[in-house]
Amino acid sequence: MHYTKEQIEEFPHLFKINLMNSISGFKSANLVATKSKDNYTNVAVFSSVVHYGSSPAILGFVLRPTTVIRNTYNNIKETGFFTINAVSENIIDDAHHTSAKYPSDVSEFDKTNLISEYKNGFFAPFVKQSPLKIGMKFLEEHHIKANGTILVLGEVIDLYFEDDMILEDGFLDLSTQNVATINGLDTYLIPKEKRRLNYQRPK
Amino acid sequence: MHYTKEQIEEFPHLFKINLMNSISGFKSANLVATKSKDNYTNVAVFSSVVHYGSSPAILGFVLRPTTVIRNTYNNIKETGFFTINAVSENIIDDAHHTSAKYPSDVSEFDKTNLISEYKNGFFAPFVKQSPLKIGMKFLEEHHIKANGTILVLGEVIDLYFEDDMILEDGFLDLSTQNVATINGLDTYLIPKEKRRLNYQRPK
Repeated sequence: MHYTKEQIEEFPHLFKINLMNSISGFKSANLVATKSKDNYTNVAVFSSVVHYGSSPAILGFVLRPTTVIRNTYNNIKETGFFTINAVSENIIDDAHHTSAKYPSDVSEFDKTNLISEYKNGFFAPFVKQSPLKIGMKFLEEHHIKANGTILVLGEVIDLYFEDDMILEDGFLDLSTQNVATINGLDTYLIPKEKRRLNYQRPK
Repeated sequence: MHYTKEQIEEFPHLFKINLMNSISGFKSANLVATKSKDNYTNVAVFSSVVHYGSSPAILGFVLRPTTVIRNTYNNIKETGFFTINAVSENIIDDAHHTSAKYPSDVSEFDKTNLISEYKNGFFAPFVKQSPLKIGMKFLEEHHIKANGTILVLGEVIDLYFEDDMILEDGFLDLSTQNVATINGLDTYLIPKEKRRLNYQRPK
């Protein structure tokens, strides 16, 4: 199959967003949780969390310029803190439900079985059921000129994970805790078959 | 397990990069291919390709500020074009080998079984064996202040994929063509078990 830019532009909206959200490959599945200054909590599923650096440890994720997801953005800008929590098999349905458009005074923690958890004095809530939880401090943001989306970058402050995930060399095995990946907008998979390869040098 | 920012900073280099490259969740597995003005080709594996928008269709990926990966960056800046090619099970070993540090006048297409393919007059080469190939035009770049990494954004110009991947509503099923995902720096998985969920509205 071959589609050109011009053909893609003329696809119906739903077809286009299903297709365009699939072509980047498998995506990370994470819940970003925040709390506003006046204590309203917010948790939303994101498939765009990406590694930006190890030293310091930096992660980034992408926010669409839409009203609802702005809760997350406003809370991060107002307080400086957020958490990233891996979506595992047992919380896929609740994680996906956070994509529903609730008003900003409604917490997705109250509308799902996801449980907010406060740890080590960190301001933003973690998701109790997640096997891999990261306390993040806001670092910088970049506004994409082409469409107004925002890349938010933060630094890892606190890292929590289940004991059985880590190997001696620091590798964290996501499959031991049934961490999910996302294909497109709405399809969740639990990767299992794995092959670890060696560090590569020129032949 | 709980690690603080201070503990993470003191980990040995390899432990730190293995751990920090694992915590964002499963990552996309793509080969980015380019050609310089004087016809040197380059292909390298990236785990940071992310969806930035559907209309126009925008993808981004992250380049580290290292000498070797700069080949990709220089070619994109010099010519304006690159391709993104999904890594499927049959090309995992060759894709991973492109992470070896070759000098800029050596093409990874010559050092692996990956085959460069030119389609529809597009300037940059595609990877023939990939089931999902995207011709990209450079749009904009953002330099991360915290560590000098670069986010490169491009627009989808030509999209090629195997017929059996697409559903009626535009969803592209990556598992039909055994597309890989990456955990950490070096572990490749082929996700198979999938569940598609409904569009969510407030309860």
